Amino acid sequence: MNRIDVYEIKEDITSRNNEQAKDIKKDLKARKCFLLNVMSSPGSGKTTLLTRIINALKNKYRIGVIEADIDSKVDAETISSLTGVKTIQMHTGGACHITCQMSAEALTALGIDDLDLVILENIGNLVCPAEFDTGSNLNLVLLSVPEGDDKPLKYPLMFEVASAVAVTKKDVLPIFDFDFEKFKENVHKRNKDIPIFYLSALKNEGVDELIAYLEKEIDKIVK
Amino acid sequence: MNRIDVYEIKEDITSRNNEQAKDIKKDLKARKCFLLNVMSSPGSGKTTLLTRIINALKNKYRIGVIEADIDSKVDAETISSLTGVKTIQMHTGGACHITCQMSAEALTALGIDDLDLVILENIGNLVCPAEFDTGSNLNLVLLSVPEGDDKPLKYPLMFEVASAVAVTKKDVLPIFDFDFEKFKENVHKRNKDIPIFYLSALKNEGVDELIAYLEKEIDKIVK
Repeated sequence: MNRIDVYEIKEDITSRNNEQAKDIKKDLKARKCFLLNVMSSPGSGKTTLLTRIINALKNKYRIGVIEADIDSKVDAETISSLTGVKTIQMHTGGACHITCQMSAEALTALGIDDLDLVILENIGNLVCPAEFDTGSNLNLVLLSVPEGDDKPLKYPLMFEVASAVAVTKKDVLPIFDFDFEKFKENVHKRNKDIPIFYLSALKNEGVDELIAYLEKEIDKIVK
Repeated sequence: MNRIDVYEIKEDITSRNNEQAKDIKKDLKARKCFLLNVMSSPGSGKTTLLTRIINALKNKYRIGVIEADIDSKVDAETISSLTGVKTIQMHTGGACHITCQMSAEALTALGIDDLDLVILENIGNLVCPAEFDTGSNLNLVLLSVPEGDDKPLKYPLMFEVASAVAVTKKDVLPIFDFDFEKFKENVHKRNKDIPIFYLSALKNEGVDELIAYLEKEIDKIVK
């Protein structure tokens, strides 16, 4: 099997996936349930930021969380213990991304009849998750300061499918060579006018702006 | 096409890949050329560390570099300008990993008749590159301090296929919650007795130990 064959198979899978994703979106809309898909590299701070967001919003919305990982349940345990919201751990059996079939199964396993907001913490990976629509209403992409401002050039699809981008770990800026203006320019080359937030979840700086944006987006579906 | 189908296809691809990888290894051995495959998350410091390693070894070995990325040529430009060694940029057309067919093509494009050591900087991704043997003699896996000590639990295959692991960005340890002993324990659960280095390429601390280890491994093939 040559390289071209592999791409053809993948293309078939992603186009079928995109079709199925439309059904998830329709179903979620009918239930007034918002699905937030959070994507980033490993270790860029998804879990820490989500803890902040959930604790800020859990009195306004009924929230559930799907933690996707290849193995372990460390993130699900962290989120559950620090927020108290309904959380499930999904293992992908080695897979590097979440297809919409996996997200549909996870939504069923979580049970969304009594939820307004479901947060899907995707596999830590800047490549493959970008290729598979999970059926989400919003794709939030995180990039941490230590990863560098050139990443939108090297992982363009992730920044193309993003609805919003948040730069995390702003508190460590003084010791890293990260240029936020250059980063914004690199993102906007790929995705014009997309909102970009700049925050430290650890120090709770800049998180409120992101939360206000998310509330506005969630209310479009939930209200 | 259901999820099971996808996995079957992937398994077929990886087993064919593993067969082809044996031919690359055999060919490299006959040519006395060593292929070093470097894998990590995006932004964990592959390029900075490789610059140090190449500059330390370029008078001992004839070195060539293959930079793999989905898009851009920022890393190839950096390596080439800071080391002066023969460097090519490979674009994977969106693919999240390097198959051994891609590495064979890249070795031909680079031209290895006059080289002792070829360094392949793989796609920044802790998942997919682990599934595809590139035909390399050694898999060096990097994990940076800001990414966290729990990553071997969440990305087990990468640490299973590693020949050696280097923790990078040791200089920022004081401001991150990273426990090196816990990290070592997490790695050794997956890959007993594997060497683990702890360094800062930026400050040039701990890099010599890794270089000495690499020299010993390279000499087994090249000498």
